[in-house]
Amino acid sequence: MNKNIIFFILGRLLIIEGAFLLISAGVSAFYGEQDYIYFLEVALLNFIVGSVSWFAVRNTEKSLGKKEGYIVVSLVWVIFSIFGALPFVLSGAIPSYTDAFFETMSGFTTTGSSILNANQIDNLHYGIHFWRSITQWIGGMGIIVMALAIFPLLGIGGQSLFVAEVPGPTKDKLHPTIKQTAKSLWGIYILFTVVEAILLFFGGMEPFDAVCHSFTTMATGGFSTKGASIAYYDSSYIHYVIIIFMFLAGLNFTLSFYALKFKWKKVIKNEEFKYYFLFTVVFTALITLFLVFLHDKEPIKSIRDSLFQVVSLMTTTGFATVDYTLWKGFIVVIAFILMFLGGSAGSTAGGIKIIRVVLVLKNIYFELKRTIHPHAVIPVRYNKHSVDQKIINNITAFITIYIITFVIGTIFISIFGYNLDTAMGAVAATLGNIGPGIGEVGPSSNFGFFPDIAKWFLSFLMLLGRLELFTILVLFSKSFWKI
Amino acid sequence: MNKNIIFFILGRLLIIEGAFLLISAGVSAFYGEQDYIYFLEVALLNFIVGSVSWFAVRNTEKSLGKKEGYIVVSLVWVIFSIFGALPFVLSGAIPSYTDAFFETMSGFTTTGSSILNANQIDNLHYGIHFWRSITQWIGGMGIIVMALAIFPLLGIGGQSLFVAEVPGPTKDKLHPTIKQTAKSLWGIYILFTVVEAILLFFGGMEPFDAVCHSFTTMATGGFSTKGASIAYYDSSYIHYVIIIFMFLAGLNFTLSFYALKFKWKKVIKNEEFKYYFLFTVVFTALITLFLVFLHDKEPIKSIRDSLFQVVSLMTTTGFATVDYTLWKGFIVVIAFILMFLGGSAGSTAGGIKIIRVVLVLKNIYFELKRTIHPHAVIPVRYNKHSVDQKIINNITAFITIYIITFVIGTIFISIFGYNLDTAMGAVAATLGNIGPGIGEVGPSSNFGFFPDIAKWFLSFLMLLGRLELFTILVLFSKSFWKI
Repeated sequence: MNKNIIFFILGRLLIIEGAFLLISAGVSAFYGEQDYIYFLEVALLNFIVGSVSWFAVRNTEKSLGKKEGYIVVSLVWVIFSIFGALPFVLSGAIPSYTDAFFETMSGFTTTGSSILNANQIDNLHYGIHFWRSITQWIGGMGIIVMALAIFPLLGIGGQSLFVAEVPGPTKDKLHPTIKQTAKSLWGIYILFTVVEAILLFFGGMEPFDAVCHSFTTMATGGFSTKGASIAYYDSSYIHYVIIIFMFLAGLNFTLSFYALKFKWKKVIKNEEFKYYFLFTVVFTALITLFLVFLHDKEPIKSIRDSLFQVVSLMTTTGFATVDYTLWKGFIVVIAFILMFLGGSAGSTAGGIKIIRVVLVLKNIYFELKRTIHPHAVIPVRYNKHSVDQKIINNITAFITIYIITFVIGTIFISIFGYNLDTAMGAVAATLGNIGPGIGEVGPSSNFGFFPDIAKWFLSFLMLLGRLELFTILVLFSKSFWKI
Repeated sequence: MNKNIIFFILGRLLIIEGAFLLISAGVSAFYGEQDYIYFLEVALLNFIVGSVSWFAVRNTEKSLGKKEGYIVVSLVWVIFSIFGALPFVLSGAIPSYTDAFFETMSGFTTTGSSILNANQIDNLHYGIHFWRSITQWIGGMGIIVMALAIFPLLGIGGQSLFVAEVPGPTKDKLHPTIKQTAKSLWGIYILFTVVEAILLFFGGMEPFDAVCHSFTTMATGGFSTKGASIAYYDSSYIHYVIIIFMFLAGLNFTLSFYALKFKWKKVIKNEEFKYYFLFTVVFTALITLFLVFLHDKEPIKSIRDSLFQVVSLMTTTGFATVDYTLWKGFIVVIAFILMFLGGSAGSTAGGIKIIRVVLVLKNIYFELKRTIHPHAVIPVRYNKHSVDQKIINNITAFITIYIITFVIGTIFISIFGYNLDTAMGAVAATLGNIGPGIGEVGPSSNFGFFPDIAKWFLSFLMLLGRLELFTILVLFSKSFWKI
């Protein structure tokens, strides 16, 4: 294994993080806050550590194997969080390092679970808010994908890095080179972010809040500059703008790329898109019916509330305009199930991803057919092509690992005496990179009350979820470390 | 499709049920209860309907295809419950037919969920208690397996009937013929039942209660003649006898067959047995540790309580000596997870079955290996043989369907306004053929409060669980009904 190339790449990436810390320092200084000094300090630390790590091994062979790729992708998220937590601690915004690490990992992984309560969030400084939001924005499209767009050198072995970081079982290459693909993805990402910020600003949102919410919407992150989350804004315009951009963020960016090139057919004929749209409509309709007929709510507002919550949960954003845990029974169950679906492959969403759910459902249907006709060869079809059984096996294994991780996580959290729904909610919300869960960690609550060891554990789940389990789990496999 | 053979077989089976109703009439008369008349009436009805159905098509061709097999196996459980519910209604023990059907289906499928509260159970007549217990005993080893042991004619196409009814992915044939295999299985089943009844009697249990509890232990059913279930008996001897026989009932009867022939090696080297034993020890140890260190309970009693509850839940029996829902947090989560494991294949237990869980876990481990070495051929091994990928696919499909059924069931039950844990508990307990669940359907509670539609739905889940989903679900597939 070429250890030096790992240090070489991580060094460069730390410098990128330093650059974002510098921007946060600028925001802090712009608002006349003393916090800018802490951002400068941490940025300096990043530059020093990054440069040393980079220069020490600058003459190493520039080749990156699959193994090194897995290690780089896994480590960079941890290291970014280790450094990124420091401004929270130094500024006193989050005095405990454990809490700060949880918050930062929740940021980079676009989870959006917070250890801060509503009141604490409302009292955060601008610089801190900005840093909190931009960690999500960086993590959304991916640290590695960004690096691939910037540095030519990382093109070596870039394919495996790309595969290890981009969510979902399918990774469409928009261009022949990874670098060009990464540039296009980040380009669309930036474009959408700017457009959303402008639209939110026109809806009456303060410019600063518009930018921050735009960062965290496109990342399907869910951090808000308001303690009440989006419920703070009593504007159906703002709600619908955010719904649309959450939906776009949960869509495969490849499809947005085609849509922007007016290749509409490619979008409309895409099977994952169809199901994504279908699930959104069906679940919104179900919840709306329930709100109107069983809870006697007003229809127009119910549609908006249902749609907002469904899109927010399914795309694993985690914004809230109402606290769904107050609705009890059926709606909580639906909300909980939505936490597992996730958005599309190649989006910034977490969770299992719709394509996997659909392929597994199709496979089950065919397995029933195979029970009746055991000798018939009945392949699963997707986008009009038959899907290789190896891919189906990989996807079912993924979902099984996801569920097992969820079960083990729930057992672990329940050790601390929490109820089944709180334990399940906290684990589903962090593993799925959603943010709020159910039980005691609903949208009106936060993760501050967990003991430190649970916070570290939940942070680990966020990382597992963001990198879709396999990337991290193979590191724990004996055969990985055999040369 | 040969519809006549279906009527022919169902007719004969109804007569078998009539015979068991006659025995119950005898028990009722022996204890001087007026109920015997109702048992006689229903027995007569069974004989008439059964004979008519049998004789009307007695000249049909005696061939049974796979499709007819699926239909017979699915229908017989429903028809047995339809007729078997009548004595409860006629005697006034359970006035509502919906409730009586739920109770009878819960009996035949060896679920053990009851709509009766503790007080009502304590006041049931002997004849009714006997019928309630013997439905479980009949269902435990299987209606079809019993019929295969009795009627030579059913040997035609018997293989597919056998496969459709015996739980688990593996069906070992003890003898070259299905008839001989079915006889051996029922032989061991009867032997164990008799031995347990004698041992319980020596422990101070009333003879009648000893017989009934023996029926429902060996069936992993869980109906008790006492409202307080086994907690009624404050005797560690009785608790341990029941633990041992629950464990035996949850073991593959093929292994018991070998053990009785002193072929110990076959038992000890069996991989499913190893895991069955391992899971029992590990989960008992975990709960004991929790009871002793966190709840300050007395160690010796804690071991017994933990072991009893673990074996009862894992074998899907559902007897209780303590109400685990009162322990909260961690233990409830463990109890809930145990509800999914199930006992061994070829046992009378419900649930997913250990062999399936183990094979899926192994497959995941190998899938991780395949991620690192994508071109290596790494088969899953079981009992030292490599397992065909088709079997792995079938098992993962089974578990996925199981989970999806669980999720859909939970959504359905939550519509009536129940909390997540109650909805999940009721569905897991009925689908897994366990009995009591968690939430509002814990061991101290019952299923009486559900609305009728929920009771019919949960009865359907019991049937789905007992016949391991595929047998029932293929009936809903379009391609099944194409000739």
